[in-house]
Amino acid sequence: MEGTIRCSANYVPLSPISFLERSAIVYRDRLSVVYEDVKYTWKETHQRCIKLASALADLGISRGDVVAALAPNIPAMYELHFGVPMAGAVLCTLNVRHDSAMVAVLLEHSEAKIIFVDYQLLNTARGAVEILAKATTKLPLLVIIPEGSKVRKPIPTHENLEYESLLAKGKLDFEVRRPKDEWDPITLNYTSGTTSSPKGVIYSHRGAYLNSLAAALLNEMSSMPTYLWCVPMFHCNGWCLTWAVAAQGGTNVCLRIVNAKGIFDNVAQYKVTHLGGAPTVLNMIVNAPASERRPLPGKVVVMTGGAPPPPQVLFSMEELGFTVTHSYGLTETYGPGTVCSWKPEWDSLPRDVQAKIKARQGLHHLGMEEIDIKDPVTMKSVPPDAKTMGEVMFRGNTVMNGYLKNSKATQDAFNGGWFRSGDLGVKHPDGYIELKDRSKDIIISGGENISTIEVESVLFSHPSVLEAAVVGRPDDHWGETPCAFVKLKDGCDASSEELIKYCRSRLPHFMSPRSVVFQDLPKTSTGKTQKFVLREKAKAMGSISEQRSSKL
Amino acid sequence: MEGTIRCSANYVPLSPISFLERSAIVYRDRLSVVYEDVKYTWKETHQRCIKLASALADLGISRGDVVAALAPNIPAMYELHFGVPMAGAVLCTLNVRHDSAMVAVLLEHSEAKIIFVDYQLLNTARGAVEILAKATTKLPLLVIIPEGSKVRKPIPTHENLEYESLLAKGKLDFEVRRPKDEWDPITLNYTSGTTSSPKGVIYSHRGAYLNSLAAALLNEMSSMPTYLWCVPMFHCNGWCLTWAVAAQGGTNVCLRIVNAKGIFDNVAQYKVTHLGGAPTVLNMIVNAPASERRPLPGKVVVMTGGAPPPPQVLFSMEELGFTVTHSYGLTETYGPGTVCSWKPEWDSLPRDVQAKIKARQGLHHLGMEEIDIKDPVTMKSVPPDAKTMGEVMFRGNTVMNGYLKNSKATQDAFNGGWFRSGDLGVKHPDGYIELKDRSKDIIISGGENISTIEVESVLFSHPSVLEAAVVGRPDDHWGETPCAFVKLKDGCDASSEELIKYCRSRLPHFMSPRSVVFQDLPKTSTGKTQKFVLREKAKAMGSISEQRSSKL
Repeated sequence: MEGTIRCSANYVPLSPISFLERSAIVYRDRLSVVYEDVKYTWKETHQRCIKLASALADLGISRGDVVAALAPNIPAMYELHFGVPMAGAVLCTLNVRHDSAMVAVLLEHSEAKIIFVDYQLLNTARGAVEILAKATTKLPLLVIIPEGSKVRKPIPTHENLEYESLLAKGKLDFEVRRPKDEWDPITLNYTSGTTSSPKGVIYSHRGAYLNSLAAALLNEMSSMPTYLWCVPMFHCNGWCLTWAVAAQGGTNVCLRIVNAKGIFDNVAQYKVTHLGGAPTVLNMIVNAPASERRPLPGKVVVMTGGAPPPPQVLFSMEELGFTVTHSYGLTETYGPGTVCSWKPEWDSLPRDVQAKIKARQGLHHLGMEEIDIKDPVTMKSVPPDAKTMGEVMFRGNTVMNGYLKNSKATQDAFNGGWFRSGDLGVKHPDGYIELKDRSKDIIISGGENISTIEVESVLFSHPSVLEAAVVGRPDDHWGETPCAFVKLKDGCDASSEELIKYCRSRLPHFMSPRSVVFQDLPKTSTGKTQKFVLREKAKAMGSISEQRSSKL
Repeated sequence: MEGTIRCSANYVPLSPISFLERSAIVYRDRLSVVYEDVKYTWKETHQRCIKLASALADLGISRGDVVAALAPNIPAMYELHFGVPMAGAVLCTLNVRHDSAMVAVLLEHSEAKIIFVDYQLLNTARGAVEILAKATTKLPLLVIIPEGSKVRKPIPTHENLEYESLLAKGKLDFEVRRPKDEWDPITLNYTSGTTSSPKGVIYSHRGAYLNSLAAALLNEMSSMPTYLWCVPMFHCNGWCLTWAVAAQGGTNVCLRIVNAKGIFDNVAQYKVTHLGGAPTVLNMIVNAPASERRPLPGKVVVMTGGAPPPPQVLFSMEELGFTVTHSYGLTETYGPGTVCSWKPEWDSLPRDVQAKIKARQGLHHLGMEEIDIKDPVTMKSVPPDAKTMGEVMFRGNTVMNGYLKNSKATQDAFNGGWFRSGDLGVKHPDGYIELKDRSKDIIISGGENISTIEVESVLFSHPSVLEAAVVGRPDDHWGETPCAFVKLKDGCDASSEELIKYCRSRLPHFMSPRSVVFQDLPKTSTGKTQKFVLREKAKAMGSISEQRSSKL
């Protein structure tokens, strides 16, 4: 339209950097970050991030360079989420459970110029650099993050740089390098590795901005929330809450080690209003001994996701007084992509029915454009009959830019103009979706699909079961049959036969496990069960078809 | 970064249309719009808007065409906010208080192809078309909106189209014309005319989307709010709440005539959670007779803006139990551009001090990038001393695209890379801004600036005063002196002398009014006092310098 002018007065590329800049003014003297005896205000956090960006620029970091980080949920990790983008660079957060070999692979693939390392993870990082040194001369600079307490233990840094000294060199008058285009990358998140090889998922400033606002809204996070960090910041940038908490001028309560005592203590001490965690974290909370529990200081909203939560766990959380919001997404969708929006008319249902509904993945949040369940070949939507399975697909501004240096994988993922999640699910008559399995996890037995999530939910509802995972065990006759791996609660007991009988009374016979193995479950650092490890084990167990019942 | 692909899976131009499409799925069977005996669900509203868009396309409306609307806050007006953009067109909402001559000017300037008219405003619209007919043959098509009740009185439509019949012809399989670029215009809002000639402010899909999310957040509007429509939708598209309520799946309670009884009745009946209104609407509420008041059903958040609210009015609103949020902006900033974010530490202050703080305009909301008070010549920021006046300037994605067909005015407004508001204000030590006056309203008396807002606030605090406006009266000696126009509350009495004495005991002598005139205040339809009318009157009164006191 004639009269339109686009200029700095009316167009600014979207970026979470704006959140920090605004909070430094609006919420200036309010607590931004708390960690043991360290406390910062938003003004201080802003200044520290500018100094960090300035120091990075002085170290030669240019626009588009990758800066890696290997650290738990400590203040420096939070600052890196702003300081690195403010230097124009791309933050690549690495899983703290990776070993040196994996860290070396990711440093090489991302071409990270610098790696920030928590002092407790120094050996892993140094080991990775040593591995790299054998293959290349372009080694990343190592910056050590000391323990974030005011009384700092001196760290033997040798030739390495130290985080606080680096910040001290930064200049407050540094001109922040805002993105030239909001589509420019802000972070790089390697997928967790439940699948084959990790892929580097590229997030943009635009996507991060929009998903942060959506996250604030779907958490019903009003201004100045107090957020307890249980979700690792290295995982989808803490489901984008790193930025969302800044947007709302909240207080970030950092937590190095996530356990029930730490959660209850911090919730009580800081009057936490919001926290997040995978179902395993919720499981930790509901199974905490009475001695570790503390009364809640008020309404505490818990966002769960990362794996389908068993209804039993949701039920127990609500019994404890938490308000649980269930969200589902993938690294490729910036973490949360859906939310199971609660309908007031469900309030009058029995609590256990409510928990079953809450275990559904729901519908896309405000930042996502569309979600659907489609036949992956014909791209036709499945009917909303709660039965027909299809692949969960997303479309919207909070879907990744692509996989770093892997255009082929990006093309495959976006084939048909939708992001193909690889998750299988059904659509309920009200439109809400429910996951049934990862496409690679589903068990096909005698031609029938078995949702391992459904079987696991039944096992979880048994009073003695702490954790359960079901995989397919090869079977000469049926192809495969369900095999359950179970960890019992402390002091509880249950036999294989008892659990199988329990399942058979609640599930069709063919869906119930044929074998049960009692053991600790192997996990990724984000709390997901490594089913490929269990599948290997089940495979090694061989067929049990000779023991099969004929009553199908 | 290599591996990035931009496609429909990960990039969708931002548009409020997405809010409606999502709510039609997520909040499908929830109440979207209520008006007397008319009730729609989000699914129905979505379908009606698609049909409206389809019918517009059938009438020949193309991308970028302007469609005008002249209507109060009725369901059809709400639907036009989505249906028109879904046809690819630009909605131009007109002030219902305009006369035929003004409507004719705006129809001609905007080149509107169609005008939707509420049945009560038919004469105004027909008059406008008659005026236009004398100058051009390109006349807009007139569509009549009947009273929105289920039992409709037949309207003599003659040659004109009727809204419901038009919708009935629309097709549900119409392919919605989403914007090709999010910068594309979505609406056209003519400035209210307190200034010289109205200018057509262009809003984009992007700005509307972002300001809607910001509005939801600054109103602390969690999902499924119930919003009572007191702000005219024709004013900045209802401060973007038209779209924000859809984003949050809320219920829109429509109100044709805004008065205290209507507000209290609807708040009680529908359990309203949010409403908005200019300070005059708040004044209406606090001065309502006891017979019209009803107890509040719960927390009711009231966003006020459009004119600086007198602290006394804010104080009385909170006494009544309302939670008031004060927001400030202009048509050029999509309505709200700032919010006076409340700090918990202010809770312990005396109520009247709280009201004074709440009367400040605060700081930019999440959608706005920056606000500042600058010297309009040097563009230097004023010091945060609560004294030095400067011009309020904005910068961000929620600033208009420009003025339609007036590139010169757009350039002037954006000169220096900031939007120049024309408002004068100061910055407090905590960064919060406070308006002192419109630059054209400020009184300069003996070389001293007098903020008319400050003088009016003192008048408002007098128990007999219902409304007050202060303008400069020409003065042979001082240049000008303050002249107050006052409307007293029903059954109250106060003399000029008493009010002048009251002001002199609370303000520096030179700031106190020298003359007081008792009368009703002339208003724009958005509740702003038309000071230019009062200035004319004060001018006609002539100088009073012969009566001046020497005690300055």
